[in-house]
Amino acid sequence: MGCLDDGRFNVELENGKNNGKDGSAIEDAVKVLLMGLGEDINREGIRKTPLRVAKALRDGTRGYRQKVKDIVEGALFPEAGLDNRVGHAGGAGGLVIVRDIDLFSYCESCMLPFQVKCHVGYVPSSERVVGLSKLSRVADVFAKRLQEPQRLANEVCSALHHGIKPDGVAIILQCTHIHFPDVESVFLDSNHQGLVKILVSAGSGVFENKNADEWADFFSLLKFRGISMEKINFRGSSDMSWCSSQSAKISSKVGPVNPAMVTAAASIIKSLGEDPLRKELRGTPTRFVKWLMNFQNCNFDMKLNGFLNGGIASLDTNKEVELNDKKICSELNLAFWSQCEHHLLPFHGVVHIGYILSDGFSPIGKSLLQSIVHFYGFKLQVQERLTRQIAETISPLIGGDVIVVVEASHTCMISRGIEKFGSSTATIAVLGQFSTDLTTRASFLQGIPSPTSSDQ
Amino acid sequence: MGCLDDGRFNVELENGKNNGKDGSAIEDAVKVLLMGLGEDINREGIRKTPLRVAKALRDGTRGYRQKVKDIVEGALFPEAGLDNRVGHAGGAGGLVIVRDIDLFSYCESCMLPFQVKCHVGYVPSSERVVGLSKLSRVADVFAKRLQEPQRLANEVCSALHHGIKPDGVAIILQCTHIHFPDVESVFLDSNHQGLVKILVSAGSGVFENKNADEWADFFSLLKFRGISMEKINFRGSSDMSWCSSQSAKISSKVGPVNPAMVTAAASIIKSLGEDPLRKELRGTPTRFVKWLMNFQNCNFDMKLNGFLNGGIASLDTNKEVELNDKKICSELNLAFWSQCEHHLLPFHGVVHIGYILSDGFSPIGKSLLQSIVHFYGFKLQVQERLTRQIAETISPLIGGDVIVVVEASHTCMISRGIEKFGSSTATIAVLGQFSTDLTTRASFLQGIPSPTSSDQ
Repeated sequence: MGCLDDGRFNVELENGKNNGKDGSAIEDAVKVLLMGLGEDINREGIRKTPLRVAKALRDGTRGYRQKVKDIVEGALFPEAGLDNRVGHAGGAGGLVIVRDIDLFSYCESCMLPFQVKCHVGYVPSSERVVGLSKLSRVADVFAKRLQEPQRLANEVCSALHHGIKPDGVAIILQCTHIHFPDVESVFLDSNHQGLVKILVSAGSGVFENKNADEWADFFSLLKFRGISMEKINFRGSSDMSWCSSQSAKISSKVGPVNPAMVTAAASIIKSLGEDPLRKELRGTPTRFVKWLMNFQNCNFDMKLNGFLNGGIASLDTNKEVELNDKKICSELNLAFWSQCEHHLLPFHGVVHIGYILSDGFSPIGKSLLQSIVHFYGFKLQVQERLTRQIAETISPLIGGDVIVVVEASHTCMISRGIEKFGSSTATIAVLGQFSTDLTTRASFLQGIPSPTSSDQ
Repeated sequence: MGCLDDGRFNVELENGKNNGKDGSAIEDAVKVLLMGLGEDINREGIRKTPLRVAKALRDGTRGYRQKVKDIVEGALFPEAGLDNRVGHAGGAGGLVIVRDIDLFSYCESCMLPFQVKCHVGYVPSSERVVGLSKLSRVADVFAKRLQEPQRLANEVCSALHHGIKPDGVAIILQCTHIHFPDVESVFLDSNHQGLVKILVSAGSGVFENKNADEWADFFSLLKFRGISMEKINFRGSSDMSWCSSQSAKISSKVGPVNPAMVTAAASIIKSLGEDPLRKELRGTPTRFVKWLMNFQNCNFDMKLNGFLNGGIASLDTNKEVELNDKKICSELNLAFWSQCEHHLLPFHGVVHIGYILSDGFSPIGKSLLQSIVHFYGFKLQVQERLTRQIAETISPLIGGDVIVVVEASHTCMISRGIEKFGSSTATIAVLGQFSTDLTTRASFLQGIPSPTSSDQ
């Protein structure tokens, strides 16, 4: 298979030698993108963003410059099988599974990172087993490229099959992609889905037939992860992409895109060692720019002011907590999307807002609060500033006493060599009574619900 | 503070320049340790173990060669605070928390890795925030050393305080250490604890007082992790180590240790850039060798044979599953400890055993099955071989039809640059009817319980 015929990667390695040159090509492209978003590229927060993005992208796609052979060689160990008996025992014949390997990859359709929980199994043969960590390392080689879930599963499967030469290899990937938010529709639809999930598999040798007994064993040992054969997507190359950037709705809604930005995005793909003319990548620069344009630094103020003046009346679902003689109005779990200005990577999560209504003010409806959240979310942002801006906007509307808590997952904490998968970030802004009175603050904070496991 | 006065680390960096020399000193030491365990250092499975151990240790203690200043510099960003208002908002004043950062460190008492779930908070001041990933990176600098939980918390706290100069820093660490198994007592006590957990904290500035309001906010946002001030250990330097290698019971039970092995372990500590004469490290080489001696390649066969001949009668807790006219006897969740022969790192978990009793054979008691598991566990092992050996030992005792499933966490999957924290490995060995009949196999596999969250 191509993934083991390393000729292609040797060439890329050669081409990739001049890291400085490739890096600076990406930096230049990122500057074009930032200017296209209306940003001042000399602003202190984003001055080094081109450098950071280039470094992160080079690291995040290092799989183009790695060889499976180097990883597997020297990690194949002889293990006796069972002599003259009926059966398969670990070592030669028995199934070996490594579950729950956290990886991330880049979507070839939109260039955003997606998360992968990878389960790998193989049945050893020829009295030969492979070091367990190599299963994870080989999977990572193919994850660290521009990918599509089914291709990723196929490539990992075939690379392991050729590297270990076992009786068979089985791969199951649980992939999670941030939903492509559309700034227009998200303002109107508060039930917008935050994440798209897909389950794919690949099998070789004894796992080639998806009804083989070996798959039943594999699923038995994955069953508590809610995985079964019925839930797996069997995808062909002609299937619609799982990435929402390809939906017709998005494509038609967003207007014409800045050609300089598209050229810049294409040059990034080329610098990574990929062919921007490969069928699956042809529309990627445009789709990436459309994603970015959601976070354009344009004058939305008019829009928000419209909301602020007209929206107070809609009193939909405020929850109230009694606090001595006053009440804390709260709105929890308002969804938000944003783009980290340090890395041009998405972060998303929920916002919790609490406030005490002063005399003479009216409560704020959920839809207005959600609009304020989206207004400050759809920008190049940092979470600390987002939190402060929401608090400062709400404060004069209710008389001063407000608390805002933002809980988020940052893509920049999982990609970029940090790879802290389970981590999440919380920021708090407090004004008025919430800043001075611990009891008031605590009674709001205690009402924040535990995140559901699907959010994590 | 010492951690930011980089003089000490510069010196270590100089000393550490000759990686080749240090690496080969560690390799030589590992050879002495392997020979002390009675292993043939030319056996194919462990031939490259000295090289692998040296590489892993150098990488796992890279914190000695890293500087906090390099990490934090360039990642401090100006963020406006609230002008002329009462309150603290994210950006300047509001609490910023990064939760659930997975790290691992090395126990200075026994040199084994321990896992850390790290929660970091700080209150920005001077209109300055730090890039979120830096909190994780700085914590990692101090984790990648020989450590003790409270010192690790203190060092991360003080490094962040000096690096960011905020109003205060708060650190909470949930640390998990593999229990030091004692091959003698573990055979007798089936309820041996697998893991030791401890919760520590450190605070600076506004968090220096553990009753400060700021701590209440921090705990509010951690509450669903079962963390509260009451559960935190406030430790002084004179407190007993959390590491069970220091318990008097272990120390007295294990006989005199091989002085060449102790010298070898001390030379490893020195090669890493540590002072083996530092108070906390003085007994570490001896404790490490005592741990290793649990996995000595000695002639235990006599002992197991004794069990096999005399132990059949004790029919304690076998569970039975009806299968047509036959019954599957099963024993689930038998604990085991073992040592990965490729990396000299522990792996541990549970073994599930099922068998069909042939006519003329008697059921096997739980205590005998547990003894068989420990017998094959307490060796330099690979999980595949362990699984096969248990199956092959049980097979003739019950007439041939046996299935063994081993589920394990491998320290070598979390340390050594792989850092796949949630991953686990399952291996299956099947003999007789379990290898030929899917229904028989499935009816056993379906009975394996889901791991409890505390095991993960």
